[in-house]
Amino acid sequence: MDDDTRTTRWERRTELPLVVASALFFVSYAIRVLGHALPEPWPSACVAAMLAAWAVFAVDYAVRWRLSSQGPRFVRTHWLDTVVLILPLLRPLRVVKVYETVQRRRGRPRLALHARVITYAGLAVSLLGFAGALAVFQQERTAPDATIHTFGDAVWWTCATLATVGYGDVAPVTPVGRLIAVGLMACGLALLGAVTGSFSSWLLQVFADEGNEKPPGG
Amino acid sequence: MDDDTRTTRWERRTELPLVVASALFFVSYAIRVLGHALPEPWPSACVAAMLAAWAVFAVDYAVRWRLSSQGPRFVRTHWLDTVVLILPLLRPLRVVKVYETVQRRRGRPRLALHARVITYAGLAVSLLGFAGALAVFQQERTAPDATIHTFGDAVWWTCATLATVGYGDVAPVTPVGRLIAVGLMACGLALLGAVTGSFSSWLLQVFADEGNEKPPGG
Amino acid sequence: MDDDTRTTRWERRTELPLVVASALFFVSYAIRVLGHALPEPWPSACVAAMLAAWAVFAVDYAVRWRLSSQGPRFVRTHWLDTVVLILPLLRPLRVVKVYETVQRRRGRPRLALHARVITYAGLAVSLLGFAGALAVFQQERTAPDATIHTFGDAVWWTCATLATVGYGDVAPVTPVGRLIAVGLMACGLALLGAVTGSFSSWLLQVFADEGNEKPPGG
Amino acid sequence: MDDDTRTTRWERRTELPLVVASALFFVSYAIRVLGHALPEPWPSACVAAMLAAWAVFAVDYAVRWRLSSQGPRFVRTHWLDTVVLILPLLRPLRVVKVYETVQRRRGRPRLALHARVITYAGLAVSLLGFAGALAVFQQERTAPDATIHTFGDAVWWTCATLATVGYGDVAPVTPVGRLIAVGLMACGLALLGAVTGSFSSWLLQVFADEGNEKPPGG
Repeated sequence: MDDDTRTTRWERRTELPLVVASALFFVSYAIRVLGHALPEPWPSACVAAMLAAWAVFAVDYAVRWRLSSQGPRFVRTHWLDTVVLILPLLRPLRVVKVYETVQRRRGRPRLALHARVITYAGLAVSLLGFAGALAVFQQERTAPDATIHTFGDAVWWTCATLATVGYGDVAPVTPVGRLIAVGLMACGLALLGAVTGSFSSWLLQVFADEGNEKPPGG
Repeated sequence: MDDDTRTTRWERRTELPLVVASALFFVSYAIRVLGHALPEPWPSACVAAMLAAWAVFAVDYAVRWRLSSQGPRFVRTHWLDTVVLILPLLRPLRVVKVYETVQRRRGRPRLALHARVITYAGLAVSLLGFAGALAVFQQERTAPDATIHTFGDAVWWTCATLATVGYGDVAPVTPVGRLIAVGLMACGLALLGAVTGSFSSWLLQVFADEGNEKPPGG
Repeated sequence: MDDDTRTTRWERRTELPLVVASALFFVSYAIRVLGHALPEPWPSACVAAMLAAWAVFAVDYAVRWRLSSQGPRFVRTHWLDTVVLILPLLRPLRVVKVYETVQRRRGRPRLALHARVITYAGLAVSLLGFAGALAVFQQERTAPDATIHTFGDAVWWTCATLATVGYGDVAPVTPVGRLIAVGLMACGLALLGAVTGSFSSWLLQVFADEGNEKPPGG
Repeated sequence: MDDDTRTTRWERRTELPLVVASALFFVSYAIRVLGHALPEPWPSACVAAMLAAWAVFAVDYAVRWRLSSQGPRFVRTHWLDTVVLILPLLRPLRVVKVYETVQRRRGRPRLALHARVITYAGLAVSLLGFAGALAVFQQERTAPDATIHTFGDAVWWTCATLATVGYGDVAPVTPVGRLIAVGLMACGLALLGAVTGSFSSWLLQVFADEGNEKPPGG
């Protein structure tokens, strides 16, 4: 109970710094990848900022491990945190919690279930897609026979992949780029399925409600 | 209450002019894009008709804003109207309401839920797909390395996109064309999911009913 | 009631001839398309057989129209029959009724709901896909810049289309071929959605039943 | 009852040998396909190991047929076993049973329904996808105009196929390779549909539970 309280207190206190560190990591990575032609001070500064953000994540993970007093089991019971520590680009998946906290603080009423799933999953898909486009672009930019030449191509490829359309006019050719692509397919399809599914069921519900509210003679 | 009544009255009175304006806008846009080889009086006439229709939409939006007495909040609470004002090609999404009103006036019984979802979403998908094909064709027609050369190519590409098949034998190459394509994927997939989902559930229901109605010995 | 009885009697009596005519039409069409290099007696014989089968369909349609005493309304209330009369290649969609009748006559117990949907929709998709591949092959075979050169290519393209994978290594290029392709997407996707959906829900049910039958201590 | 007991005893006793034989077959096939440049002793040894494993499967099938005392009907009532005997690469589909047995022996509590479906179907899809990539690679490796040149290409193609993205930058060109591809589409899509479907419904449930547990004032 005491551990739990201390964990809760830690989480409340680190919330804001973690969001700032996540945003810092994300923005630094974007500048690093997109501004590959910038002069020297920039790339090093970006790498330094990314490492600093990563250090914040590692400290947070270590403290929470300590507070949990779970021992090695913590790595498995908090597997999402572990994955996010290794691949900080997946942090956007945690945006859901932040968004909800902000909405509650501002005293806004909670959205209906469908609206929340659509909002959260849509938000997470957008951020994950942007991160994936950045990572694929970094891998493919310098490959000799690449079809993804600009960041616009990478974003276009990401959208076609997440919608499972897959034109194939541009596609990754490097092994690492393809590995990222497979991860993007797996993550994105599941989340997109949630969005589409809840949008459809919301649509069906709207039509059903309309049918009940207005009698045929109305 | 008084505002509400006046809004309702306004909406009833403007229904027909708005439908006419929407159709005018749609047809003018189609002539403008498809008849790009027509001699001079035509293009100017089309642009004039589109501007006139747009003016009607703007006046309707302004009057309803005024009547709502909501102030700036109106832009957000009526976000669909706002989007449709900026992108009049999305107006077909409102065809659902018109179709229902017409059916009710002619005293037709309302269709069953599944049939209505399939009809409405199918109608909206068809119109949106046609508008998207027009917009993409206009963007791609003059691009130097385009694969979409004729309007037939654009329609073929739209169908393959909406069904998420995505052959990639033709695909947009201009930034604006790709932006429209992403919008088409997002809108179309959700609506198509509703059509497919309700068709599937209707099919399952038909089989289930058959199983109950006819005893094995029938 | 009398009309109904006569219609029922007519339907029972014409069942077998209609199945034979459907099979004849299908086989003749397949020989006509696939055996395009056969010497003269063959093509004419196939066309004659197809016309004969079509005449049988037309007579059946006319008699049932007469018996229904519905007047012009019959065309709309029996729209599926009307469509099937105009496009006899869609007749496989009626295979469901024939299959069920045969199963009942042989005294076989009816399958469970999921199994029936999978069987029927799978059967209909297979036949529709085969018909679609034949029709597309006939259109594309002689097109100057076609990518579908052999019937094997057409079948491969059909499978990739029905699964919404759409590689695009082969794709129709003629307007008529693309029109058939769009129809195949629309019909096939809906049926395939039914198959996939009921398979998934069956799988979920199996796992749920297993969980209930075997207690954790089992 | 006696037969049943003897069948159960046989199944319990052959469980381990069958898993070992399955793994042996799988690994031998992988070495055979991937190590196509290995010197002579290797290929023959792999083929011998595959034949030995196949013999084990055949003996098991024969003994269970005998014990069932069902006669020829056994082939149909145990159609999954029959298919798996003819195409041993599909054996991974049986991994579900093995996994569950291992979990139970180790005294682990059973996972919740959604988690189990995701785990099992994910496991089966991964193994089936790997087997399919191996089989397609073996067929395409030596084809003159193939686009699948390395095993990495085959895995990349398999992932794009199972996610129904289908870029088409690499695709099978040989008839046998395309036949395997169609089977992969059919098997994989259904299983993947189960994974996606249960993930989505789990996600919806999580959001719904969250909404109930935490009151708005929390």
